[in-house]
Amino acid sequence: MKRRYAILAPDHFANDAKTAHGVIAYGTDETAVVIDPENAGKRVTDAVPYLRSEAPIVASVSEALRYEPTALLIGTAPRGGALPPAWRAEILAAIAAKLEIVSGLHDMLGEDQEFRLAAQRAGVRIWDVREPPETPLFSGAVYKIPVPTLLLVGNDCSVGKMTVALELCNAAQRAGKRATFVPTGQTGIMIAGWGISVDRVIADFAPGATESLVLYAAQSNPDLIVVEGQGAINHPAYAPVTLALMYGAAPDALVLVCDPTRERIGGYETPTLGYRELIGLHEALLATVKPARVVGLALNTRYLDDAAARAQIERARSETGLPADDVVRNGPDALYAAIAPDMRKGQPCVA
Amino acid sequence: MKRRYAILAPDHFANDAKTAHGVIAYGTDETAVVIDPENAGKRVTDAVPYLRSEAPIVASVSEALRYEPTALLIGTAPRGGALPPAWRAEILAAIAAKLEIVSGLHDMLGEDQEFRLAAQRAGVRIWDVREPPETPLFSGAVYKIPVPTLLLVGNDCSVGKMTVALELCNAAQRAGKRATFVPTGQTGIMIAGWGISVDRVIADFAPGATESLVLYAAQSNPDLIVVEGQGAINHPAYAPVTLALMYGAAPDALVLVCDPTRERIGGYETPTLGYRELIGLHEALLATVKPARVVGLALNTRYLDDAAARAQIERARSETGLPADDVVRNGPDALYAAIAPDMRKGQPCVA
Repeated sequence: MKRRYAILAPDHFANDAKTAHGVIAYGTDETAVVIDPENAGKRVTDAVPYLRSEAPIVASVSEALRYEPTALLIGTAPRGGALPPAWRAEILAAIAAKLEIVSGLHDMLGEDQEFRLAAQRAGVRIWDVREPPETPLFSGAVYKIPVPTLLLVGNDCSVGKMTVALELCNAAQRAGKRATFVPTGQTGIMIAGWGISVDRVIADFAPGATESLVLYAAQSNPDLIVVEGQGAINHPAYAPVTLALMYGAAPDALVLVCDPTRERIGGYETPTLGYRELIGLHEALLATVKPARVVGLALNTRYLDDAAARAQIERARSETGLPADDVVRNGPDALYAAIAPDMRKGQPCVA
Repeated sequence: MKRRYAILAPDHFANDAKTAHGVIAYGTDETAVVIDPENAGKRVTDAVPYLRSEAPIVASVSEALRYEPTALLIGTAPRGGALPPAWRAEILAAIAAKLEIVSGLHDMLGEDQEFRLAAQRAGVRIWDVREPPETPLFSGAVYKIPVPTLLLVGNDCSVGKMTVALELCNAAQRAGKRATFVPTGQTGIMIAGWGISVDRVIADFAPGATESLVLYAAQSNPDLIVVEGQGAINHPAYAPVTLALMYGAAPDALVLVCDPTRERIGGYETPTLGYRELIGLHEALLATVKPARVVGLALNTRYLDDAAARAQIERARSETGLPADDVVRNGPDALYAAIAPDMRKGQPCVA
């Protein structure tokens, strides 16, 4: 049964709520209402035009209840990490109203004594999306699946790797192909309803967790598997997760997602890499385990006007000789059509 | 106070007990006795000549007690992973005799109900060496420490990265330099008495865990920090840990440790890489975050005769143009002297 979400996104719904926006734009579950005192009285589309959702925005859980949600989704991360007292009260109100609680926070709400007891009493489930299951060590079984696998990589976090993955799946469906999206992070999991937050897996088991996701996706024998990417290969903190996805998913092709205006890795002094450097580094690493090529670039030009966006797309094409586009601005069909012929099964290296 | 270890290593002490051998050869704690029914009655040096230890080998914990150990160290991993009933009885006997229990197994003995209750009752500590503490996200603070940092990397697991790190520390001490060994895995931790098993850290935090180890080592202001390596950059399962150490330790120089006879990554079909490929890949990755060069090669020639070992060392030198040696066969002083001038502080990339 589909959920009807009340999305808790106080304070930063309009500009800093990646999870909320992703679920509203792409979720298989429905968004009934958003809770954000700052924007109360508006519709979602008024606060965030590109989401094109008419869902109402209200100030509190108690007001949200008249839209008959079945679950409360924590749609933003609290500034500083710790849960503010006002959020705590709202979550407890949702539990008391028998809403399922769905959270992608690093802190596990199900381990919070107050929430746990309240949920037990109300007979309500707390789904901590980031809590990974036990996963096996990487086995190499993924090398044997017959389905071509595409992995998204990028020049930083939060450049749109998940969005591009979802848009390319949509384009594949329109082209008559059955494409399965493989979620590897909390928002992707909330959108698809399954997956593993690979960044929360014990490092030794991160490639194995990724492999298990791809094996699961392959069970329904789709025409294409599209694996959500994470981090960046030169991200000082998150690159190990990027590499875990590369070796664990054993992709047959990569699409490189870049924000061309991003000059440094978010939160660090580390410079982002140019297209050719990124392509070279990813391909050199994969060449040692299971070779795969970057087959196209997806640019995130949301902060540029039309002319500047066109110029960036043209620059990406001429620098790399590869298809390049912004799949949000221009739709994903052209990029999908350009890269589809390059999605052929590859073989791992063997000694 | 130093421990006196009884090392539990049934069945494979002579040939498959990396942890036991490491602690006997390099541990700051003393090995009083080894427990291995197969080799009972011998001395350690009879079963494993290169260890040069006169410690007795006995058949059981109860026999070991007369050598007055203060701790039981689990020195091998049980075949198949699960704890055999015979081992369980020995561990319980050690707890009853008030020995501290030191374990590097993936399964946490302290979470085993029977061991936990027995230990509580006996007032004995169970130290699960692999259990990581909570660690912060990578911050970049490591870029500011003034101490040159050397990281060991290699062509596979179990090629001797820890041994080379310890031998180079010894050589540095003999050359009048204060060198601090930074343990990143269970055996290193047992040897040094501190550290974090980085492979057990949640993937997102693995570089931060590594950084915290280097920052801790820098507090005593040594002349050189030597970080134990893990895995290999093209290891299908463990490469993310390798990369976490590279970005998290932010080394100023690398030493590449290779078994030249290893043709494939242990347990996988993946071919090991050649020296120049390995150097190129490590340096290309580090060049994007904080550049560092491979300054020397340490070969593990234990399975070769003298002539073959000399030939391999010569080949490594001529292929790479770098100092190369086997620091166990020939001692570490020559390699240390050759690379010492290359250990200068480097700067991170900034945008």
